[in-house]
Amino acid sequence: MNKSSPKKRIVCMGGGTGNFVVISGLKKYPVKLSAIVSMTDDGGSSGILRDELGALPPGDIRQCLVALSGENLLLRKLFNYRFDKGTFKGHNFGNLFMVALEKITGSFDQAVEKASKVLNVHGEVIPVTLDKAWLMARLKNNHLLKGEHTISKFKLLLKCKVKKLFIKPKARANPKAISAIKKADLIVISPGDLYCSILPVFLVDGIPEAIRKSKAKKVYNCNLMTEKGHTDGFKVEDFVNAIENYLGKETIDYVIFNTKKPSHQFLKKYSEEGAKLVEFDKETLKKKGYIGANLINPKIYKKDSADIFLQRTLIRHHPDKIAKVIMSLLK
Amino acid sequence: MNKSSPKKRIVCMGGGTGNFVVISGLKKYPVKLSAIVSMTDDGGSSGILRDELGALPPGDIRQCLVALSGENLLLRKLFNYRFDKGTFKGHNFGNLFMVALEKITGSFDQAVEKASKVLNVHGEVIPVTLDKAWLMARLKNNHLLKGEHTISKFKLLLKCKVKKLFIKPKARANPKAISAIKKADLIVISPGDLYCSILPVFLVDGIPEAIRKSKAKKVYNCNLMTEKGHTDGFKVEDFVNAIENYLGKETIDYVIFNTKKPSHQFLKKYSEEGAKLVEFDKETLKKKGYIGANLINPKIYKKDSADIFLQRTLIRHHPDKIAKVIMSLLK
Repeated sequence: MNKSSPKKRIVCMGGGTGNFVVISGLKKYPVKLSAIVSMTDDGGSSGILRDELGALPPGDIRQCLVALSGENLLLRKLFNYRFDKGTFKGHNFGNLFMVALEKITGSFDQAVEKASKVLNVHGEVIPVTLDKAWLMARLKNNHLLKGEHTISKFKLLLKCKVKKLFIKPKARANPKAISAIKKADLIVISPGDLYCSILPVFLVDGIPEAIRKSKAKKVYNCNLMTEKGHTDGFKVEDFVNAIENYLGKETIDYVIFNTKKPSHQFLKKYSEEGAKLVEFDKETLKKKGYIGANLINPKIYKKDSADIFLQRTLIRHHPDKIAKVIMSLLK
Repeated sequence: MNKSSPKKRIVCMGGGTGNFVVISGLKKYPVKLSAIVSMTDDGGSSGILRDELGALPPGDIRQCLVALSGENLLLRKLFNYRFDKGTFKGHNFGNLFMVALEKITGSFDQAVEKASKVLNVHGEVIPVTLDKAWLMARLKNNHLLKGEHTISKFKLLLKCKVKKLFIKPKARANPKAISAIKKADLIVISPGDLYCSILPVFLVDGIPEAIRKSKAKKVYNCNLMTEKGHTDGFKVEDFVNAIENYLGKETIDYVIFNTKKPSHQFLKKYSEEGAKLVEFDKETLKKKGYIGANLINPKIYKKDSADIFLQRTLIRHHPDKIAKVIMSLLK
C-alpha cells in the first residue's frame, strides 16, 4: 500500500495557449492536474468546424490534451500538425480528430475522454461547458458584439467600454468541472486573452460560485503583455480587478506576475503592434499575495506562417519558471 | 519454445475495397497476412489530397489498415469516418491521418508503419510503390487517357480498346512488397476494378517478375459483376486473360469465381447501371485450377449517401466464404 500522502490537486483554467504553458510546467511535479478549458472559441479552425459541422470548438481542448499527453513526440506532433495548404489550410489535425470523435461517439465529452486515452493523458482535460454558446459583449453605447472572434478583433473595446460580457444561450457548467474545482487544493487562472480566454470561463453558470466555495487557494497568473484596444495601460491590479468583477471580489488569494523586462529591441517589435509590457507599481511588490518574479521564456517564439488564423504572441511565460512559483504555494 | 510449424504467409494484392473483403475473411485464420496495395488512386478524397498536398493516395491503404486492425471498434470507425458536410465533405478521417503522418515523418512508408502501430495492425499493409505515379491508358486510336479517375469514368474503354495500360513516371516496386511476395506461400489477387485497382499493381516495375518467380501458389478471385464500358460480357476466363496479359501467361494457378445467382430483383438494379453477373461456361467448372463456389454476401450494401466520390457496388463477396476457399488451397 502506498503510504505517502495523496497527490495534491491543481486545477488550471483558461484558454488553450495559456493553459498549455502552465500545465506543461506543472506536469513535471507529482500533482494531479486538471485543465478546465474555455469553450467559446468561434474563430479560425474551431470556428469553421463549429459553423460547418455543428461541433464544439476543439482547438483549446486539443492544446491541453497535447500538453498532458504521455505519448511519444510523434503523436503529440501529429495532434498539433497544421495543414498548410489546400482545403485543410489552417486546420490542426487534432481538431479534426476531436470533431470526428465527437461525431462518432455522439458527444464532445466522450470525444475528450477517448482522445485522452489515445494520447495517454496524465490528468484531466475538461471543457468548462458542453453547451454550445457564443460570447457576447454589450458595450456602454449599447452596441452588441457577437462572438469571440468579433470581440477579439474589435480594437475599440477599451474606448467604448464593455458594459457586460456574457455568453448566449446560457451555458451550464460541466459537472466534471464543478467536481474538479471542489476537490482542488489549488486553482490556477492561466494567463491568456482577458476577454476571449479567461473571462468566458467565469461566465458559465455555476463556475464562479464553485470557485468561491472551493477550499483551494486561488492563484492568478497575470499576462506578460497588454493587448491593443483591450487592455492598454493595464497594470497587474487592473487585470485582477477585471477578473474579480466576474469571479467575485477578493476571490483571488495570490497573483503571480512578471518583473523581468525583456530587451528593448524585443519590446519595440511588440509596441509596433500596440502591445506593451504589463507594468506594476513598487507597492504592488509589497502587497499581500502578490508575487513578482522573472517569468519570461528566453526562447523567442516565431509567428507561424502556416497559422492563417491566429496571431500568436512572440513572448511567453516559461513553463518551468511559472510552475516553480505556483508549486511554492502548495507547501 | 513454440514447436508448431511457422505460420503460412498470404499476400493479398489489389485496391482498398477488394483487399478489405479478402483480408477481413482471412484474418480469422492463423496466417501471416500482407496486403499489397495499388497506389494510383487519383479520384475522390485521395485525389484531392494528392493534388493539394502532394501526398501519396491514402484511401486504399486506409481500408486495409482498418481491415487488419486489432483495435476496438471505435478507432476503426474513426479511421473510416467520413465528413458529410462542409469543407471536408467526402474526406475520410483516416485519409487525413495518413497525410498528416506522411508530412510529419517525411515519408509515406513511415506513415504506414506508424499508423499500423496506432491501429494495432495484425499483419502488414504495403504500398506497392512509394513513387508518385499516374495511371495512363493508350487507346487503339492512339488517344491517351491520363489518370485513374479519368480512366475509371471513361465508359468507352472496351469499345475503343486499350492498346497499353501503363503508369507514368515509371514506378519502382516497394522493396517490402518484393520481399513479401518472395516469402509468400500464397499470393491472392483480390477482386476489384480491373483497370483501376488490379492491373495498376502489375504495372509497377519488378512486381510481375517477383510474382512469377515466387514459389507461392497464385490465386485470382474473380469479380462478381461486370462493369459498364470496361468489362461488358467478360466471362471468368476473360478476366484471367486480361490479368495474365500484364502478369505473364499461365502465372495464375487457381481461379476462384462465384457460381451463385442473386435474385432477379437484385440483378435488375444492377443492370440499370449496365453491370451484369460475371458468367462462366459449364466447361470452366471442370478446368484445372478453376474453383466455382457461392461467394456472395447476402447482406446488401446500401450506397452511402455521404460518399460523394465513389460509386460503391451493392453486391459484395462474403469475407468468410471467400476466405474458406482460399484457405483450402493452403492445405
